[in-house]
Amino acid sequence: MDKLIEKIIEKDNTPIVAGLDPKIDYVPEFIVKECMEKAGDDWQKGAADALFEFNRTLIDNLYDIVPAVKPQSAYYEMYGIEGLICLQKTISYAEKKGLYVLLDVKRGDIGATAEAYSTAYLGETVVGDKKARSFTPDAVTVNPYLGTDGLKPFVKDAVRFDKDVFVLVKTSNPSSGELQDLKVDGMPIYEKMGSMVSALGADNVEQYGYSRVGAVVGATYPQQMTELRSLMPNTFFLIPGYGAQGGKAEDCALAFDERGLGGIVNSSRGIMCAYKKGDWKPEEFGAAARCEAINMKEALKNCIK
Amino acid sequence: MDKLIEKIIEKDNTPIVAGLDPKIDYVPEFIVKECMEKAGDDWQKGAADALFEFNRTLIDNLYDIVPAVKPQSAYYEMYGIEGLICLQKTISYAEKKGLYVLLDVKRGDIGATAEAYSTAYLGETVVGDKKARSFTPDAVTVNPYLGTDGLKPFVKDAVRFDKDVFVLVKTSNPSSGELQDLKVDGMPIYEKMGSMVSALGADNVEQYGYSRVGAVVGATYPQQMTELRSLMPNTFFLIPGYGAQGGKAEDCALAFDERGLGGIVNSSRGIMCAYKKGDWKPEEFGAAARCEAINMKEALKNCIK
Repeated sequence: MDKLIEKIIEKDNTPIVAGLDPKIDYVPEFIVKECMEKAGDDWQKGAADALFEFNRTLIDNLYDIVPAVKPQSAYYEMYGIEGLICLQKTISYAEKKGLYVLLDVKRGDIGATAEAYSTAYLGETVVGDKKARSFTPDAVTVNPYLGTDGLKPFVKDAVRFDKDVFVLVKTSNPSSGELQDLKVDGMPIYEKMGSMVSALGADNVEQYGYSRVGAVVGATYPQQMTELRSLMPNTFFLIPGYGAQGGKAEDCALAFDERGLGGIVNSSRGIMCAYKKGDWKPEEFGAAARCEAINMKEALKNCIK
Repeated sequence: MDKLIEKIIEKDNTPIVAGLDPKIDYVPEFIVKECMEKAGDDWQKGAADALFEFNRTLIDNLYDIVPAVKPQSAYYEMYGIEGLICLQKTISYAEKKGLYVLLDVKRGDIGATAEAYSTAYLGETVVGDKKARSFTPDAVTVNPYLGTDGLKPFVKDAVRFDKDVFVLVKTSNPSSGELQDLKVDGMPIYEKMGSMVSALGADNVEQYGYSRVGAVVGATYPQQMTELRSLMPNTFFLIPGYGAQGGKAEDCALAFDERGLGGIVNSSRGIMCAYKKGDWKPEEFGAAARCEAINMKEALKNCIK
């Protein structure tokens, strides 16, 4: 997690991760039109190319002010092979621009299968004397429903390959409480999961006091955020739910320590679609995204002590 | 779920799904060698081709005696783009042979993102007047940690596109109880999740009395299987954990109704690696898989009333 924290500090203490969840409706029409025409019958390639052009311009406009990007795998998988090529290209491009890449895949499975997922996203695929990395993010998100069997392979690879893992604890969506808020002997499930995540990272606390095993904690549930922060002092938080989903800067601030560290706040639609609000032209979507990121940074700075 | 049940009945009431989780170590060396040599520097393609050759021979030897196959996405994702092309080819080949294809992806996310995943695996990707299916299985597995927001898009697409969904309820792995067995007001989480899944499928119960929303319930926990069967009479079970993981035929039998319906039992390693036990030669891996499937069928038939 030190790598991420250093990038946050380097970018003038900006704890923002820009979500790259490019729905085709978010991409300005002139890009879609051009890429679709160029691709002809191979329209899925055209669509994927449009997503990549969109991502590239966003990255070009953001890389010097934000430390990280978070592609959401679903929006690439839905374009099949072409979408996944776009995902790989997006990860590589962000990497080249010095960004920390957090790939939001929310995988989770039994031990042997979790190993295969971890190999795909954090480790190396090996056949005989050949080896290669299939996808190359700095971190992934994982789902804890199957218990620690399904998490340990990711933690092991994180340590071995200098990566991080973020485990879902309290998610930002409206129905997250259906399971996560249920109480077991007076303690909600999200706290139980918080303790599990904390224990998983206990051996890997790094220089800044945070472990390689982070937690996903939504900005939309400030009370739970407060409880989890005090329960998990060595766990770095990935904070979704800011902006479009309703989370506010003061809610996010609850995750931070007295140094102004402890979490990174995601904004996807807010940044990607900034050009759709106000007087921006479609061609200015990159500048609009930059402007929104700067405004978000100010809003967070005003709330984080 | 009728489609799956009809295929089970058609294949002489054989409730077996063959897992296609092709670790490269499972593939006979002569196939790996040949494919790797042919691919030259493009060794990931060579490895993926070896997986496909392995799958194809398994399917050729199984398609007339089992109703379904279950590729596990992780084992394809770990070979990157080439692995995902192999996954698409495997799905198409199994489809052509008349098999029901259950893709084990265990996806789960907030509403909007769950929609994108569902589009990728059950629905259609649409851009302007173009549309296509990216991956073409008959069903997928999903993870309920985020609550019903993350499940409903899959159910909606299942109804619209004549597909099915299997939600993780009680998984087969050793640590599954860490979260799933916790008790809320005296009721274990897996029962809470069971009720949620049951309710999600209530509007879509089909002719055989089972809904489009199935549940994953491991053979390794017979007591929980019994409880869930009585709690969820209209839910079809996908039953992992048979064989290598320790689940027995008599444990699986607990999921079935008086007609001999109600579940489908997965075997992955047991069938794929059958040739590694006994006097089989590596070239006979297909015949060995067929023999193991026949033995498994007999074992299940002896236990299911």
